[in-house]
Amino acid sequence: MLLKTHPCGSLTKANVGETVTLNGWVQRRRDLGGVLFIDLRDRSGLVQIVFNPEFSQEAHAIADRARNEYVLAVKGKVVERDAETVNPNLATGEIEVRITEIEIMNAAKNPPFFIEDGIEIDESLRLKYRYLDLRRPEMQRTLMLRSKAAKVFRDYLDENGFIDVETPILTKSTPEGARDYLVPSRVHPGEFFALPQSPQIFKQLLMVSGLERYYQIARCFRDEDLRADRQPEFTQVDIETSFLSQDQLLDLMEKLVVRLFKETAGADIPTPFQRISYADAMGKYGSDKPDLRFGLELKDVSDIVSESGVQVFASVIKKGGQVKALNAKGCAAWSRKEIDDLGVFAARYGAKGLAWITYKEGELKGPIVKFFNEQELEALKVRLEAEEGDLVLFSADTKKVVADVLGNLRLKIGRDLGLIDESQFKFAWVVDFPLLSYDEEEKRYVAEHHPFTRPKEEDLHFFDTDPGQIRAQAYDLVLNGYEVGGGSMRIYKREVQEKMFSALGFSPEEANDKFGFLLEAFEYGTPPHGGIAFGFDRLVMLIAGRTNLRETIAFPKTASATDLLMDAPGTVDDKQLEQLSIRIALKQPAKS
Amino acid sequence: MLLKTHPCGSLTKANVGETVTLNGWVQRRRDLGGVLFIDLRDRSGLVQIVFNPEFSQEAHAIADRARNEYVLAVKGKVVERDAETVNPNLATGEIEVRITEIEIMNAAKNPPFFIEDGIEIDESLRLKYRYLDLRRPEMQRTLMLRSKAAKVFRDYLDENGFIDVETPILTKSTPEGARDYLVPSRVHPGEFFALPQSPQIFKQLLMVSGLERYYQIARCFRDEDLRADRQPEFTQVDIETSFLSQDQLLDLMEKLVVRLFKETAGADIPTPFQRISYADAMGKYGSDKPDLRFGLELKDVSDIVSESGVQVFASVIKKGGQVKALNAKGCAAWSRKEIDDLGVFAARYGAKGLAWITYKEGELKGPIVKFFNEQELEALKVRLEAEEGDLVLFSADTKKVVADVLGNLRLKIGRDLGLIDESQFKFAWVVDFPLLSYDEEEKRYVAEHHPFTRPKEEDLHFFDTDPGQIRAQAYDLVLNGYEVGGGSMRIYKREVQEKMFSALGFSPEEANDKFGFLLEAFEYGTPPHGGIAFGFDRLVMLIAGRTNLRETIAFPKTASATDLLMDAPGTVDDKQLEQLSIRIALKQPAKS
Repeated sequence: MLLKTHPCGSLTKANVGETVTLNGWVQRRRDLGGVLFIDLRDRSGLVQIVFNPEFSQEAHAIADRARNEYVLAVKGKVVERDAETVNPNLATGEIEVRITEIEIMNAAKNPPFFIEDGIEIDESLRLKYRYLDLRRPEMQRTLMLRSKAAKVFRDYLDENGFIDVETPILTKSTPEGARDYLVPSRVHPGEFFALPQSPQIFKQLLMVSGLERYYQIARCFRDEDLRADRQPEFTQVDIETSFLSQDQLLDLMEKLVVRLFKETAGADIPTPFQRISYADAMGKYGSDKPDLRFGLELKDVSDIVSESGVQVFASVIKKGGQVKALNAKGCAAWSRKEIDDLGVFAARYGAKGLAWITYKEGELKGPIVKFFNEQELEALKVRLEAEEGDLVLFSADTKKVVADVLGNLRLKIGRDLGLIDESQFKFAWVVDFPLLSYDEEEKRYVAEHHPFTRPKEEDLHFFDTDPGQIRAQAYDLVLNGYEVGGGSMRIYKREVQEKMFSALGFSPEEANDKFGFLLEAFEYGTPPHGGIAFGFDRLVMLIAGRTNLRETIAFPKTASATDLLMDAPGTVDDKQLEQLSIRIALKQPAKS
Repeated sequence: MLLKTHPCGSLTKANVGETVTLNGWVQRRRDLGGVLFIDLRDRSGLVQIVFNPEFSQEAHAIADRARNEYVLAVKGKVVERDAETVNPNLATGEIEVRITEIEIMNAAKNPPFFIEDGIEIDESLRLKYRYLDLRRPEMQRTLMLRSKAAKVFRDYLDENGFIDVETPILTKSTPEGARDYLVPSRVHPGEFFALPQSPQIFKQLLMVSGLERYYQIARCFRDEDLRADRQPEFTQVDIETSFLSQDQLLDLMEKLVVRLFKETAGADIPTPFQRISYADAMGKYGSDKPDLRFGLELKDVSDIVSESGVQVFASVIKKGGQVKALNAKGCAAWSRKEIDDLGVFAARYGAKGLAWITYKEGELKGPIVKFFNEQELEALKVRLEAEEGDLVLFSADTKKVVADVLGNLRLKIGRDLGLIDESQFKFAWVVDFPLLSYDEEEKRYVAEHHPFTRPKEEDLHFFDTDPGQIRAQAYDLVLNGYEVGGGSMRIYKREVQEKMFSALGFSPEEANDKFGFLLEAFEYGTPPHGGIAFGFDRLVMLIAGRTNLRETIAFPKTASATDLLMDAPGTVDDKQLEQLSIRIALKQPAKS
């Protein structure tokens, strides 16, 4: 076997005159009248190798049998190319290798798609032949980037005293949160393990253990109906610390993120990151993960329009809703059709209509203009900083619908107008999330983050008066409109925990039933602690400039949670099920 | 909140005069007539803090309420201790901290066991209160060692061009190997994922993908009945490479192991590691994972005793068995009782009896002596290098039983005689494993490693004549009698794979049914590849000088696969099962 001495993509003019052995795949072959040129590929890149009966009759004859994706081992001399055959698009384009020895290590069938970047084929074919898809340079680059990103996380955390601890995958079903994947126990018939949705409980227990600084690049599992940016198993960089203030923790994490983006993307991220309260993020951008690469802020105009002749505005405000507006700068020239299309778009987010005003040729136009008086129109103009050429869009509804509608319109218009600098990484911490939200269906408060999130000290008194007002010591890291991390300081005082459970409507018995062992652990000297988890798949996606999580995962599952390569899930033997003391119980079709 | 400025265990005389803030747990308190001494502990160690009403009346009063395992935040000045109160057993023993401010961060109930090393309590109590067990310094050291070991693996592999790739946990049930853990699919009723026993198939596919060098510190799962050194989920450092010879790969791995032991244990491991063939290991040590820290080699004496008057020896040899012996140097003086005990020990490994000869006071003693002639006795003496004071033990049986019996006797005697240098790390590669072994029950050959293990080139011809003779390009890394790693070069040529399947008795249809997608992948240009997996839990155990895998895992499971802390596995709601289209089917008790 001819063992490689050099990676294909590493050869340059500096190697001219050397005899090298290369191992790789045939990317392309061209037969130019008896002289055979092959582009040989390994993970480092391509190099041109040349077979000429003058160099070796035998090698030429063997090479003649090689087709695309054959695996070759070749030996030959590096020579400089003639000036006219230099390929400036190839790192190795100034040289070629004249082959005198060859071994076909393996043959290959014709692959179902080209092994090259930018192919446009059905993703399911790529997933079925993932081992070929991963040969494409852009996939290899992404996997290498992912590996590098993990290394940077680990190096930084290691240098800062964090201990990498593996927590169990076979664990217990959690009483709240998303749906768990279950694993039947053979040894304990009728009982089940659950795969963890996150190592949350374990990392808090590690703080009770006095480990002080923990991290893990952890696999997590959620049996949810999938969206484009969800996978049934996903990876998070899971972090927990003791004895730090929120500011200290966020500062430590900022430095981590800065280093990550420097070492993977070469980007210089300025610090400190902007910190924006949840209330401001929702107010200005209609989102708790605002894309801050552009302005286009929402303005509350409820006070201006509450007495106006626009009936729907006045009545929404009377019902406790609000009216907000967005100034699409310079869009007054959009056609009626274009504006109607915005209405259709807004309807997707719950808008019942989309009122608008244009400022065009010194005139105000739009169906609602006539219902305002001069004063109101002037106030709107001032509030929205409207000028000649602008288009102002209104949404009147509940706070939530207004945020959804205008938040999404903002993103759409920002993109349509090219306001977004795609090369920019714009980070912010969204802080001061509400601790609780009222669930109208369950008629009780539910935890926004989880029941162990620490309330802000100065809001504790609201437990007795207005729990919905309590802000949490919780934070999300937002990048270009994506949430890439999130966490909180945790409750560590028993009396605060009891208030929290009582606000959630749990009796002490219920609390004990759901979280008993954790509550018990908390009684043995729990330090103040808090942490964060970064969405590793999503971070890699954003660094790689991709828009689909599947592109960042070596062997992802489809939107129906299927592995097309392994054909998983699959059926199993009845004997296996019997050992596990379970039986398949398919739902009966409804009776006719 | 008083935020820590220094780790407790870091303070030395260099800090004298500084005002420091410490956060930690009360290890111990002593009230010496109004002056209160507390040993405060964090993960860095202990420091003595002193409360005296003279420093602060208030702090002293608050500290007086503190009990063991309370969490304190304290602020005070570092002072040098008087000469007579210096504690040379404590890193911080030359100083103490005079506290002027204190906050009780949290109270603690009295823990169920002492938070200190070397406690002797039931392990199940430790596991139930694992968060307290992990506070003990020896457990913290082990977790830190484990984290460090992972870091060394990663650093080395990263520097050597290996790419860290995460492979799926939700995958497909494998047709061979141990029992799989299954995960019912909700989206595909009646179908199941399986948790991987290893990433074997994925890592080979990554080689087909052209990744060339892959690694992953991978969680693996086996639903087996547990032994002391098995866990249902375990961690392996999983490695695969392309285009390397076996020698190149082993060399690369040796350097990795050397670095690991240098950086974690401070040990200098000489290279190259001894390489010993499977045949030699079994022959000389009765084990494929020999402890090479001492000699005491087994000797085959079949040729000497085959014609002897010892009926059982002669008949065993006639039936194709063998007779081997072990010279327990200097043990002639052992009492009859002691020798009988060896017989009981041997019986555990299948011995039907244990023949022996002592060389004592110039005489040979033992029940079998009289059945040998002078020539035979002389030949035995020479073969076994027996001299005055020695005890020779014989085993006559099938090759397997002889190896088990004498191999285990060798270990026992080595330990009993103190021949083992416990401070030594003695590595060896065991190579040239048999490719196939004949399964008497199934009446066919089965793969010793797995069906993708590459046979030695020079043994290929045995496929047609005597498949049992074929040696594999497989290797185990052995340390002090433990297998700490194992792997093989893989088959990458279709015709070899077909011969392998045929030797295993698979029809092409069966082969396709079991390994279809992998065989298909192999047709698209598979490079020569091979790899290894290190048992990470076991390596950490050996580096830490422990004898139980559970000591190296933060949250291990018991021998009955139970997590005593989380109380997992547990029961789940019927609704959850219904969503998964499964039902519990407990075995009916037998009818009376």
